[in-house]
Amino acid sequence: MKPVSHIKIKNGMRVNELVRQMDLAGVLGSGRLGKAVSICEAMIKDRYCRVFIGLAGPLVPGGMREIIIDMIESKWVDAVVATGATLTHDLGEALGYRHYQGTANIDDAELYKKGFDRVYESYMPNKIYEGMEDFIAHNFDSLKGKKSIKDFLWEIGRLTPKKSILKACYENKIPIFCPAISDSGIGLMMWGQLAKGKNVDVRAFEDLKEIMDIAWTAKKCGVIYFGGGVPKNYIQQAMQLAPKSASYGVQVTMDRPEPGGSSGAELREGISWGKMNPKANFVDLICDATIAMPIIYAALRERIKQKYDSKSPSSPFSR
Amino acid sequence: MKPVSHIKIKNGMRVNELVRQMDLAGVLGSGRLGKAVSICEAMIKDRYCRVFIGLAGPLVPGGMREIIIDMIESKWVDAVVATGATLTHDLGEALGYRHYQGTANIDDAELYKKGFDRVYESYMPNKIYEGMEDFIAHNFDSLKGKKSIKDFLWEIGRLTPKKSILKACYENKIPIFCPAISDSGIGLMMWGQLAKGKNVDVRAFEDLKEIMDIAWTAKKCGVIYFGGGVPKNYIQQAMQLAPKSASYGVQVTMDRPEPGGSSGAELREGISWGKMNPKANFVDLICDATIAMPIIYAALRERIKQKYDSKSPSSPFSR
Amino acid sequence: MKPVSHIKIKNGMRVNELVRQMDLAGVLGSGRLGKAVSICEAMIKDRYCRVFIGLAGPLVPGGMREIIIDMIESKWVDAVVATGATLTHDLGEALGYRHYQGTANIDDAELYKKGFDRVYESYMPNKIYEGMEDFIAHNFDSLKGKKSIKDFLWEIGRLTPKKSILKACYENKIPIFCPAISDSGIGLMMWGQLAKGKNVDVRAFEDLKEIMDIAWTAKKCGVIYFGGGVPKNYIQQAMQLAPKSASYGVQVTMDRPEPGGSSGAELREGISWGKMNPKANFVDLICDATIAMPIIYAALRERIKQKYDSKSPSSPFSR
Amino acid sequence: MKPVSHIKIKNGMRVNELVRQMDLAGVLGSGRLGKAVSICEAMIKDRYCRVFIGLAGPLVPGGMREIIIDMIESKWVDAVVATGATLTHDLGEALGYRHYQGTANIDDAELYKKGFDRVYESYMPNKIYEGMEDFIAHNFDSLKGKKSIKDFLWEIGRLTPKKSILKACYENKIPIFCPAISDSGIGLMMWGQLAKGKNVDVRAFEDLKEIMDIAWTAKKCGVIYFGGGVPKNYIQQAMQLAPKSASYGVQVTMDRPEPGGSSGAELREGISWGKMNPKANFVDLICDATIAMPIIYAALRERIKQKYDSKSPSSPFSR
Repeated sequence: MKPVSHIKIKNGMRVNELVRQMDLAGVLGSGRLGKAVSICEAMIKDRYCRVFIGLAGPLVPGGMREIIIDMIESKWVDAVVATGATLTHDLGEALGYRHYQGTANIDDAELYKKGFDRVYESYMPNKIYEGMEDFIAHNFDSLKGKKSIKDFLWEIGRLTPKKSILKACYENKIPIFCPAISDSGIGLMMWGQLAKGKNVDVRAFEDLKEIMDIAWTAKKCGVIYFGGGVPKNYIQQAMQLAPKSASYGVQVTMDRPEPGGSSGAELREGISWGKMNPKANFVDLICDATIAMPIIYAALRERIKQKYDSKSPSSPFSR
Repeated sequence: MKPVSHIKIKNGMRVNELVRQMDLAGVLGSGRLGKAVSICEAMIKDRYCRVFIGLAGPLVPGGMREIIIDMIESKWVDAVVATGATLTHDLGEALGYRHYQGTANIDDAELYKKGFDRVYESYMPNKIYEGMEDFIAHNFDSLKGKKSIKDFLWEIGRLTPKKSILKACYENKIPIFCPAISDSGIGLMMWGQLAKGKNVDVRAFEDLKEIMDIAWTAKKCGVIYFGGGVPKNYIQQAMQLAPKSASYGVQVTMDRPEPGGSSGAELREGISWGKMNPKANFVDLICDATIAMPIIYAALRERIKQKYDSKSPSSPFSR
Repeated sequence: MKPVSHIKIKNGMRVNELVRQMDLAGVLGSGRLGKAVSICEAMIKDRYCRVFIGLAGPLVPGGMREIIIDMIESKWVDAVVATGATLTHDLGEALGYRHYQGTANIDDAELYKKGFDRVYESYMPNKIYEGMEDFIAHNFDSLKGKKSIKDFLWEIGRLTPKKSILKACYENKIPIFCPAISDSGIGLMMWGQLAKGKNVDVRAFEDLKEIMDIAWTAKKCGVIYFGGGVPKNYIQQAMQLAPKSASYGVQVTMDRPEPGGSSGAELREGISWGKMNPKANFVDLICDATIAMPIIYAALRERIKQKYDSKSPSSPFSR
Repeated sequence: MKPVSHIKIKNGMRVNELVRQMDLAGVLGSGRLGKAVSICEAMIKDRYCRVFIGLAGPLVPGGMREIIIDMIESKWVDAVVATGATLTHDLGEALGYRHYQGTANIDDAELYKKGFDRVYESYMPNKIYEGMEDFIAHNFDSLKGKKSIKDFLWEIGRLTPKKSILKACYENKIPIFCPAISDSGIGLMMWGQLAKGKNVDVRAFEDLKEIMDIAWTAKKCGVIYFGGGVPKNYIQQAMQLAPKSASYGVQVTMDRPEPGGSSGAELREGISWGKMNPKANFVDLICDATIAMPIIYAALRERIKQKYDSKSPSSPFSR
C-alpha cells in the first residue's frame, strides 16, 4: 500500500508539476485528477488506441472552445461526439458572436427583454439565432442532401467562415457525431426550412455505421467524457462493439451515480455491459468540466509534444 | 408572509393528505413536492393547456413503468419525449424480460459473465438484446420506411406484443419523440440491419415539424420533467415557439445548476430564453425521480378522476 | 434474484401502502425509501435495540418539528444528537416565534433590512435572538452550573414554556447531545453572558461518558441519520464502543460520498471502522430530509402502534 | 458586459498563469476558481483584514497537510477553525503514522480485519488510536487543566513531536478552534481518561470569548471555507459580531444549497444574517477541496511573497 504524499507547492510551479504532485497524493479529487491526466496521456500516446471524446454541458459558453479546437487539431482524438448545444454555441462564435460574463442572480424577465439567453452565469445574445438562420438559409442547398448527421456537420464546418470546432473536425477529417442534432439551435434553424415545406435527407440512424466501424476496427479504444448525456452514452454504446471494449477511460462529471442515470454512472458499471474492459485503466473525476479541462489539457500539452497525423479513422490498418 | 406549518402525521394517512401537509409546510424539499403536485394538477385540469412530459433516467429499471403507462392512458399528457434507453427498457419488458434487484457493490466483471448489465443497482439481463434483435429483424420491413422517429416509435408500439409505454402512446395517439433514438438498444438493433446493407428512411429533423406544431398551436403549455437530458431540452426548445411559452412547469432532477448544463438548469433560467412565461407557475424539485414520481402520481390520482379524451394533439382547435 | 416490481397506484392510497409498493420495486431511490422504513420499523420494534437519531440541517425551518417531537414522545429513540442550529430553531419556536415561507431568489440585503435571516427559502425573524437573549439571561443562574451539555440542554427543555424538542427530551428522559452547542444561537446567547464576565461550568468532554455508556451497555444499537455533520459523526463514534457496533442503520442525506467527508460517507464505510456490524441491516437514502422524514414517519406511524416505555437509557439492564 | 475569453494553454504554463486565464474566462467553475484566487489574494494582502479559515472534510487523508501548515506558518490566516477529525488526522501523522492510497470498491469487513479505517478511498491505520491513546495518557496532566478548547489544542500542538497543523498554530500564536472536539479521535482518547474517573476542565463555551473578540475588534474580516460543517458555521456566527461583517469570502464546497443546510448555503445567504457585508467580494466555488486547495495555494504562492508577521490576533491594535 502506498502512503498518501502531501502535496508540496513551490513558487512559480507549472501546472504539470502540480498535477504530478496530485498524482503522488493519489486519493480523492486531487489523486483522481492526477490519474486522469496520466490515463489521457497513455491513451493518446498509445499508437494502437483510438480515442473517442464526448462533449456535453456549457463548454463553449464556459471558455473551453480553444482547448477543444487545439485537441482536435493536434489529432489527439479520433472521433468526437457532442451535444447539439455545444455545436450551436460553437457555430455562433464562428459567425462572430460572443458569450458574456453574467450572474445567476438576475431577473430573467429583464434579461429576456435585453435579448440575452442565460446559461447559468454565461449569457448568449439572442441575436445569435438570426445569424444562424441566415447561415442555414444561405447554405441550405448544400446541407439538405447529406445523408448522415456527420456529413451534415462536416459540411457546416466546411462552410463556417472562421475557426471552429466543426471546422477543425472537417479539416482534420475527424468524424463528429451528434445524434440529437435536432435538439439544438441548429435543429431549430433546420425546422425553419422544413416549415417552409423544404425537404432534408439527413437520416437518424445513418451515423451508426461509421462510429461502430471505428470501434469495431480499432485495436484498442480510449474514451474521454467531459459531461454525460448523449455524447457519453453514444460512445459507450460503440464500446460494446469494440473487440476489447474500452482499454482507457476518463470521465469528468458533476452528476452523481445513485439516481442511476447514464450521465452519473461510474465507468466501472460499463464493465458489466462489455463497454469497459475489466483490465482497463480508468478514473471517474467528480469535477466541473470547466475546471478540469484546462488543467488536464495544460498538463497534457507539456507531456505530449507530438501531433498524431496517422490518428485518423480512415487509416485503421496503418496502426 | 405565511408561516411554515409543521407537518402533522396521523395514523393511516393517505398520500394525498400528506402531500397537502407538505404544501402547507411550504418550503424546501417538502414544500416543493407539495407545490409540484398542485402545479401538475392545475396544468392537467386546464383544458386549454397542452402537457409535455420529458422522461430521462432509469425510470423503467426503477419500477415506474406502470405509472407512466397510466398517465399516458389517462391522456393527462399531450406529448412524450423520452431517452432511447427508456424506450429500450420498455420494449424489453414488453417482450417479456424483467429488470432485477441488485446492488452497486458488486464485481462488474462477474456480472458481465453472468449476463447482466448494471444500471446502478438494477440489473438488466443481456439476453434482452437477443429478443430485441429478433423483434426488429422480424418487423424491419414495416419499420424501415417510416419518415419520422415518432412514426417509427408508434409502429414499434403497434407491433409490441404486450402493454408498454410505446403501445400506450400509439393506441392513445399521443405523439412520442426521441431525438437521440440512434443512441439506444433500439438504435443498436437498427445498426444491425444497416450493417447488412439495408436502408432505413427515418429522418433526423422530421419530428421537429410535429412537436413545434403542437407548441405553436397550443393556447397554453405545461411541462413536466422527470430527469433532464435531451427530453427536457427538446421540450424546452419547443416552448420557444409556443405563443405564451410554458405557463406551468415541474422539474424533478438530482443534477445541480452550477455546472451550467441544461439538465440541472433551474426552470427560472428558461424565462431569459422565452421558454418559460415570466408569470408561469413552476417549481424545481431536487429529488430522485423514482421517489417523486410515485408520490406525485398517487396524489394526482386522488385529485384528478377524469380521463381527458380531448387531450389529443390531433384536435388542437377543439379546445 | 428478485425482479423489479413496477409500482401500482390506486386511488386514495395510504402512505404506508405506497411505501410497501416501493419496497417491492426494490431498487434506486424508491426501493431504498421502502427499505429505510422497514429498517426503522425493525430497529424500533427490537426490544434489545437502542436507537440513536442524528438531526442536522434545517429540519425545524422545514416543518419537521412536530414529527421529531412525536418520535421522541413515542420513545422510539433512546438518544438524540442534534446540531446547535436545530435546537436554536426549536427554542425559538418554543418561545413563540415562527419560521416563514420565502424564496431563495431574493435580495438578501433587503431581507436583512426587513429583519429576516434566510435559511435557503425559509425565513427566520431576527427578533428570535432578542427572545432567546431574554430567556437565557433570565434563566442563566440555573443553566451556568450544569456540568454536561446534555444537562444544560435538559434544563433548557425544563424551562421552555411550550412544547419543544428539548422539552420532549427532558420530560421523557431521553438524553440529547449537541457537542458543538457553542456554534449556535444558544451559544451566542451564552457568549453574551460570558462577555459580561460571568462563568459557565459546562464541560466540553463531559457528555462522552453518557453517550459511550449507552452504546457500551446496549445489546444492540440502531442509528438513524437525517443529515450528516456532527450528529452523525458523534453517534458513529459511539458505535465504535458498542459491543456489536450498529446492527441497524438508516441514513438520509443529499451529500455525496466522493469528496470523502463524514456527512456523505456511505454507511458501509463504517464497517471498516467497527462502527457498523458487517451483518447489519442498513441503507443509504439519497433524499432531502424534509421529503423523506414525513414519508418514513407516516409509514412507521401505521406500522408501530406501541409506545416504548422501557426504551429509556436509564434502564439498560431491564432489556 | 465582458465577453467570455476562451482559455489559451501554452506549453509549460505555470499554475498562476492558468488561473489568470480562468479569471479572464470569467464564468462557471473556471471563472469562479479564478475569482477565488483573486479574493484570497486581496484579503491576505489587506493589512486591515483578519482572515478566518474553516477546514472540514478529509484534508489530511487527502494530502493537503503541508499546504495548510504553510498557510499558517506564512501567517496568511489569523484564526483557524477545524473539525475534530482534521486535528485527529493531523495528530496521527505528527505521531508518525501515515494515510494510505486505497479504493472505495473494497470489502469493508476485510479492511476492518486488516486494521484500516476507510475515508472514502484513503485508508487510516487503526493503530493510530494506540499512538494517540499513549500520547494523551502521557500528557494528560498538562492537558486536563486547560479551560478553553483553544488552549487545549495549543497545548497538544506544543507537545506534538513533529511538525503539524496544531504545532504551527501554537508556534505562530494562531488561535485554533474546534467546537466539536469531543466528536473526534482526540475526544475518544479524552473519554478514555474520563472513564477512569479523571477530571477535565475544558469548557464548552469558553472559546466564544476569543473568536468573538477577534471578529469584534477587526477593522475588516475575510473568510475562507474549505468544506462546511461546524468550522464554516462557527466563523459565520462570529461574523455577526464583526463591525462590518465579512468583507471578503471564498467558499469551496461540494454540498448543494437547496436542502438548506449551512454547509451548502451560498455565501450570499449570509448577507440576510449580517454575516456577510452586502458590498463584500465573495465567491462560491463548487469543487472538491482537494482539487481547489492546491491550485488556489499554488497561484497565491506566486502572488504573495510576504510573510505577515503582524497578522497575529495578539496585536489587534497594531492594525
